[in-house]
Amino acid sequence: MTARKKAAAKKKPAARKGTTRKAASRKSGAAKRTTKRTTKRTATGTTTGTAKKAAARKVFFFGKGRADGRAEMRDLLGGKGANLAEMTRLGVPVPPGFTISTDVCAEFKKAGSRIPAAVKRDALAALQKVERVMGMRFGDPSRPLLVSVRSGARSSMPGMMDTVLNLGLNDRTVAGLAQLADERFAFDSYRRFIQMYGDVVLEVPHHAFESRLDELKDHAGADLDTELDASHWRSLIDEYQEVVLEHTGERFPQDPMQQLWGAVAAVFRSWENERAHRYREIHGIPGEWGTAVNVQAMVFGNMGDDCATGVAFTRDPSTGERVFYGEYLKNAQGEDVVAGIRTPQPINAASRKADSADLPTLAEEMPRPFRELERIYKKLEKHYRDMQDIEFTIQNGELWMLQTRSGKRTAEAAVRIAVEMARERLITRNEAISRVTPESLEQLLHPRLDPDAPRDVVARGLPASPGAAVGRIVLSADEAETLAKTGEKVVLVRQETSPDDIHGMHAAEGILTARGGMTSHAAVVARGMGKCCISGCGDLHFDPGGGGIQIGGRRFEPGEFITLDGTSGEVMAGRIPTAMPELGGAFAELMRWADKVRRVSVRTNADTPADATAARGFGAEGIGLCRTEHMFFEPARILAVREMILASSPADRERALETLLPMQRGDFVRIFEVMEGRPVTVRLLDPPLHEFLPHSDAEITEVAKAIGTSVASVRASLAELEETNPMLGHRGCRLGISYPEIYRMQVRAITEAACEVKAGGVDVKPEIMLPLIAHVRELERLRSLVESEIEAVLAHHPKIRLRPHIGTMIEVPRAALTADQIAEHADFFSFGTNDLTQMAYALSRDDAGRFLPTYVDHGILESDPFVVVDEEGIGRLMRIGLEGGRQTRPDLKVGICGEHGGNPASVRFCARLGFDYVSCSPFRVPVARLAAAQAALEEAGASGGKPPKTKRAGQKRSGTNRAGKKRAGGKKR
Amino acid sequence: MTARKKAAAKKKPAARKGTTRKAASRKSGAAKRTTKRTTKRTATGTTTGTAKKAAARKVFFFGKGRADGRAEMRDLLGGKGANLAEMTRLGVPVPPGFTISTDVCAEFKKAGSRIPAAVKRDALAALQKVERVMGMRFGDPSRPLLVSVRSGARSSMPGMMDTVLNLGLNDRTVAGLAQLADERFAFDSYRRFIQMYGDVVLEVPHHAFESRLDELKDHAGADLDTELDASHWRSLIDEYQEVVLEHTGERFPQDPMQQLWGAVAAVFRSWENERAHRYREIHGIPGEWGTAVNVQAMVFGNMGDDCATGVAFTRDPSTGERVFYGEYLKNAQGEDVVAGIRTPQPINAASRKADSADLPTLAEEMPRPFRELERIYKKLEKHYRDMQDIEFTIQNGELWMLQTRSGKRTAEAAVRIAVEMARERLITRNEAISRVTPESLEQLLHPRLDPDAPRDVVARGLPASPGAAVGRIVLSADEAETLAKTGEKVVLVRQETSPDDIHGMHAAEGILTARGGMTSHAAVVARGMGKCCISGCGDLHFDPGGGGIQIGGRRFEPGEFITLDGTSGEVMAGRIPTAMPELGGAFAELMRWADKVRRVSVRTNADTPADATAARGFGAEGIGLCRTEHMFFEPARILAVREMILASSPADRERALETLLPMQRGDFVRIFEVMEGRPVTVRLLDPPLHEFLPHSDAEITEVAKAIGTSVASVRASLAELEETNPMLGHRGCRLGISYPEIYRMQVRAITEAACEVKAGGVDVKPEIMLPLIAHVRELERLRSLVESEIEAVLAHHPKIRLRPHIGTMIEVPRAALTADQIAEHADFFSFGTNDLTQMAYALSRDDAGRFLPTYVDHGILESDPFVVVDEEGIGRLMRIGLEGGRQTRPDLKVGICGEHGGNPASVRFCARLGFDYVSCSPFRVPVARLAAAQAALEEAGASGGKPPKTKRAGQKRSGTNRAGKKRAGGKKR
Repeated sequence: MTARKKAAAKKKPAARKGTTRKAASRKSGAAKRTTKRTTKRTATGTTTGTAKKAAARKVFFFGKGRADGRAEMRDLLGGKGANLAEMTRLGVPVPPGFTISTDVCAEFKKAGSRIPAAVKRDALAALQKVERVMGMRFGDPSRPLLVSVRSGARSSMPGMMDTVLNLGLNDRTVAGLAQLADERFAFDSYRRFIQMYGDVVLEVPHHAFESRLDELKDHAGADLDTELDASHWRSLIDEYQEVVLEHTGERFPQDPMQQLWGAVAAVFRSWENERAHRYREIHGIPGEWGTAVNVQAMVFGNMGDDCATGVAFTRDPSTGERVFYGEYLKNAQGEDVVAGIRTPQPINAASRKADSADLPTLAEEMPRPFRELERIYKKLEKHYRDMQDIEFTIQNGELWMLQTRSGKRTAEAAVRIAVEMARERLITRNEAISRVTPESLEQLLHPRLDPDAPRDVVARGLPASPGAAVGRIVLSADEAETLAKTGEKVVLVRQETSPDDIHGMHAAEGILTARGGMTSHAAVVARGMGKCCISGCGDLHFDPGGGGIQIGGRRFEPGEFITLDGTSGEVMAGRIPTAMPELGGAFAELMRWADKVRRVSVRTNADTPADATAARGFGAEGIGLCRTEHMFFEPARILAVREMILASSPADRERALETLLPMQRGDFVRIFEVMEGRPVTVRLLDPPLHEFLPHSDAEITEVAKAIGTSVASVRASLAELEETNPMLGHRGCRLGISYPEIYRMQVRAITEAACEVKAGGVDVKPEIMLPLIAHVRELERLRSLVESEIEAVLAHHPKIRLRPHIGTMIEVPRAALTADQIAEHADFFSFGTNDLTQMAYALSRDDAGRFLPTYVDHGILESDPFVVVDEEGIGRLMRIGLEGGRQTRPDLKVGICGEHGGNPASVRFCARLGFDYVSCSPFRVPVARLAAAQAALEEAGASGGKPPKTKRAGQKRSGTNRAGKKRAGGKKR
Repeated sequence: MTARKKAAAKKKPAARKGTTRKAASRKSGAAKRTTKRTTKRTATGTTTGTAKKAAARKVFFFGKGRADGRAEMRDLLGGKGANLAEMTRLGVPVPPGFTISTDVCAEFKKAGSRIPAAVKRDALAALQKVERVMGMRFGDPSRPLLVSVRSGARSSMPGMMDTVLNLGLNDRTVAGLAQLADERFAFDSYRRFIQMYGDVVLEVPHHAFESRLDELKDHAGADLDTELDASHWRSLIDEYQEVVLEHTGERFPQDPMQQLWGAVAAVFRSWENERAHRYREIHGIPGEWGTAVNVQAMVFGNMGDDCATGVAFTRDPSTGERVFYGEYLKNAQGEDVVAGIRTPQPINAASRKADSADLPTLAEEMPRPFRELERIYKKLEKHYRDMQDIEFTIQNGELWMLQTRSGKRTAEAAVRIAVEMARERLITRNEAISRVTPESLEQLLHPRLDPDAPRDVVARGLPASPGAAVGRIVLSADEAETLAKTGEKVVLVRQETSPDDIHGMHAAEGILTARGGMTSHAAVVARGMGKCCISGCGDLHFDPGGGGIQIGGRRFEPGEFITLDGTSGEVMAGRIPTAMPELGGAFAELMRWADKVRRVSVRTNADTPADATAARGFGAEGIGLCRTEHMFFEPARILAVREMILASSPADRERALETLLPMQRGDFVRIFEVMEGRPVTVRLLDPPLHEFLPHSDAEITEVAKAIGTSVASVRASLAELEETNPMLGHRGCRLGISYPEIYRMQVRAITEAACEVKAGGVDVKPEIMLPLIAHVRELERLRSLVESEIEAVLAHHPKIRLRPHIGTMIEVPRAALTADQIAEHADFFSFGTNDLTQMAYALSRDDAGRFLPTYVDHGILESDPFVVVDEEGIGRLMRIGLEGGRQTRPDLKVGICGEHGGNPASVRFCARLGFDYVSCSPFRVPVARLAAAQAALEEAGASGGKPPKTKRAGQKRSGTNRAGKKRAGGKKR
């Protein structure tokens, strides 16, 4: 209505055009890559033509060796659809079908949840092709074609969206199915279809169906579904149709076309359901991507004992070992395996686990389709050049492939697979580097259970996702989330998990389920999250009334501690101590390759010799942030610190500082020794002094007594030091200016320690860092204080040659804005992105909890700016700071020491900007090393294979390379 | 020692060169201006040549109609030196002398407080010229030349630095002086010289001399100096020489040359004394300017009754009236008038005040020199084109001019003089605009004493500086500073003031002194500060033991209130109510001229109809910031506000908001009515909610009772709302996102009020402003909330046409950094420079008090960034924000509504950047109007006369015009 609105309305078409253009160029890029590979292998016509056609096409047929789509079109077809098309082209047996593209998802939403007429028309045409291939007709009472309708997004979102199977059945076609198989099967299929369609499309609560089934079983005196016969199912069909009529006020749709459009619409709608939203939130998937819909001829794994359905991985997804690994269920539908309701059989000897050691394998039971499966898996892995997660169905002895995709894997497996594939020359080393998600490495480094600790093993389940978890038992996802927020570590214990449990799994240290196999929901999701999981623990039972649980016959209450070993499958009572893992050879090799490639060096944030030792083990090339204040909190020291703060005169303060001096010196000696000549950046005291004072009445009294002053005087000091906004108050270098004696003591401790260690023959590279600089004159003043103190110490050590670098944090926005001035007095900049984010975003980390979740929920923020650098805002400030600094001093050393230093996206951002180093917590050092290598590969455009773009959604990259290039140029000078 | 230091050392010469080049170009600019004027009047050779010579020359002779310097060289010669040269050139009788340039001040300091040999040589040569002009010789026992040695900086610093008179006297030359005058005079002069030299150069405590004088008087039974005769003085000379020997261990120097170098060095040293430092700090004078030294032949106003010394102004410095105005003392030395120790006589009838009504005037007593003085003052004012403050001495009936400079004046006088001079065509209107310091206008607008209020007048003094002051009595400058810091208003009451009292005068509302005339230290300084001052109040007496005072026979204790009327000179007991002043015609005229010139519009920050009314009276063109939260604090409303906050459900909250709605609507109705169609920017709720809740136990109980909830629940809410860093917490638009119902109520109140006022026939231009926007999506979301609420209201007023602008504060650094995105949804930006400064500087205004003073003391900060926009840091952010916003939306309206909006330097900065408006408190509206006009003149380079640069030291202007120019271009489109 307003002028602004009109202007905005005018702008929109242009904006859209922009997007389309970008999308088109992305596609043509993809097409180019395709060209390369296709010409090598198949050479079917000009792919540019194909790409053009593809841009207009919305329905993509596949079947009998021919397909409109291909693997590279996953943005448009979703992962599943693209791979069904690709497999079809490869000559792999795939039931025919068609894919409605992801573009239609947005159109559908925009059109008020209607399927566009043109799409319906094209789908109908594709359906007729499917009929021809299958020799069956949709809705034909004698040879009815049945189809499945499934979602399929660009990025896999297992179980998040809806699926309908057996679509096309109605009161008439069910008879045709009975003729093709048998009556029991046909009626069972029909009642399953009604139940599924009722649930997914018609939104009838599923317990309404389940209670009718339970009644029927009671009535028939049956415990299991298998005990029911065709007539039972036929009667249940009537009841189910009644349920539908009751809940929807309409008859269950008999028209197969109506069924089809209903299911397609439901799948599109399911893109917007809460589960899917949540999943996207956690995995950073943009809502605008949309899902495709795959409509595919049904094949049945549950038509008899010559039927089966299974899931397999071309390599072991837990360990990465190069063995064909899978599970199957005889006479079952595909969803049964994934749902983990029946414990499946191993497909071969290599897939045998403890609980399936005595079960027959597919290789034994159906050798012919198994050999076919082996042939296909090898072909697929070679074609896709990655470990594949495949789904298959055997109908009356005939093998059909239903899906292939890059398999989810543990971090351990990812590393091993990447390294081994590079050794096998299936991929290049650079591709191997790009294949591993840096974030996932962290789990490899976290402690595992101490192998020597006594274990009170109470039960054993499937080792579904490796690692260890120690935590309090919680029985629901909500509880898990709530308790974890208070800082407690929890283990989520469930009968089985479902997509509704995602948030709880996210919050938990580990997951334990009573049911489900290695490919159950719990197992797949936990591996993706890098969390420890034990599934299918048959000895786990829930009290019928809720409340407690029994594991291996012992009672446990919620809140009690248990320990899981995801590698062995052992469930233990209590807390088992953890120990550091041994890192395998593949990991070391991958890191070596990464180190050769990366340009940015990786340091660690370490305040203690222990941290420093751990970080060196992880490959840290120095300490980027050594916070001196943490050293003050040790019980033996805090008293001296408090005396120093409460001192009534500079003389008293100096005396207290003299007590602290040897302690600080000792800390530095040990850290310098550990780091053996690698740079160690020590930040001088930063937090406001009141952080060191007690606040409770009892503590105040205690401190007053210990220090020999009055309670009133301690209280007075507290009151005087209290601040309205301590973040923006008397801290950082401001302390150094108000109390120069404190900084002098610290500089003395650093310098004396350095002299001591050097005198012992170990090299030392101390760097002294001043926090919270906002104005160049603060740095100028403090630099001369630091220099004079260093000189004073060195005067007593005439033989020691030492030139500590003196630099500053860039954590105040003004410092970034005036970096050109500040660089006059700084040997290095270290971006403190935590505070920079707090200040430039007006976001107090301590207080943001009250509104930040709402912000993420409402989509105002895409991600937590304290985890991933906000490139648009904070990132711009960083660029300004870097450019200003380098303008004054082209050789200025620049790093980052905020939490972001260990976040891969942020590491890549820093690398692009031209940073010299990143610094992060010890466990994230390998993460940063790998991320830095990937950044270098991206910049060089040299990764050789498909760049792992989809994993880095939402990153803007335009123009950010410039600084990096400049930097590279600067180095040459 | 470090590499850095070396690099810095290498850089220095280059940097210095840069400065020199700049300085040179400044000089050549000055020279060009000189050329213009000189060619008009004198045409003596090429001034470019002169300027070149001047750049090398360090000692500048003047005397007998010839001078090396001229008025435009004040940077080099200081104000006094430049004007002595200029007066000499004009043919005005000036005792000959020479000026050692300000450059030498730095050289002196750098050389370890030594006068460079070359300077000494040139000075000697100049001294010989002086000897020739005077026909006397320095150190000649028969006709000894005596000289004065005085400081003289670029900007006048009255009384801050040292002066030595009668230099050249020694045991031998004193006899020569006696021959020229008489013995008593000669010995008196000599003892004065020893005392002054001893104090200033030799650092002998002056009480050491005074006690000897007191002893002598006791001994002689004399009360006054005049009762002592030549022999007394002669004996005192011996005693003084003893004092010098005692305190310095050396004899008083007898060599006139040694005396001279000692005095010159002392003057240079005095540039660095504490008083001078403090004065520079207060007045923003850079330390690197340095002082010049003026050595000038002595003339004596104290050689007898045909001698006098005086000070005069070419117009009345209090009122600006065009009358010759001055005071003199017969038979006295110059310093006696300024020191205010004797009450002086008026120079003419126009200069008569109450206390001098019956004293004879100079016109009466010495008609010939008075007529000469009249001729000279007219010449000087016409030449300098400004009101002059002149010093003169009459020696044996002969008039000598010792100084001329632009006279300090009250704000009232400044306005009147500027306007009248423009009317007289002495200056242009644009010059008139540039002549008035915008800051000073504020005092014209502040309330004066209510003329109808009963006055308990206890005494009467000189109306030394107009205005009114009400405050508690304090008796020392330190006390004044201390008490004022607690927020108390104080009146400084002193015997007389000295430069040591500057900080106390700064802190006080007004100054009352017992001694001194209209040109005493207290009077001059107070007028400069725009503070009310009554001097020479003879009925003011101090208790001998300290403690209390008596005024007009009544006792007052420190801490009691008194009231001063600086316009009438009345001192009153207690507090007199104040009333708004009537603004004179000159003020209105100047404002009219300014309004025609300026480009930036001026709005006001007003939260109430009363504020709005006041601001309109001062010429506000709209409201730039109407803070809605202030409306919430009224006792009748705060309860509803608290109910709203403590509401346990949205429904309860909505109910409380319904109570508030009509109240808010009523506020807006009245404000809109006052503003009559001028834009009114209403900011939606900004502060964190806990600010509205009580904190003391008693209040909490009271509120709980009033609201009908439990104390515990109020406490729980308080605890829940408490924040670690509220500045960066849950406030601003974050409240609007968490509690949209609050913002909806406010928008409804604004829109309904606008409809009501419009329906009544008065135009309304509401603008709705969202605070604390950090991310474009916050604004996007809230804009649509605001728009939908407006539409909902307008649906009920089909006949009202209303399109409120919707815009945002730019107060979060990230908002400035992403302004291009934010402008997509904003009709206007208003820079909230208070918060922008807090965040980008990491400076909490509430907490900075603990360290900011240290920062200013140590010279880390030049000025308080909350008063003057920090152009380098915050200003850069503003530029980024403005450029980003205008890039997206060239017609974006941009303003400022922080406190800086009324600070002239900041207004000029905003004008240069291309802002559309500034908004400030009502009293500063005229200040901003004038500052904006001056900015426009500066930009246009059209001020015609000398731009008032010295008043705006330290401003960087390079490149800042570009945005402004762009903007002007944008407007044309």
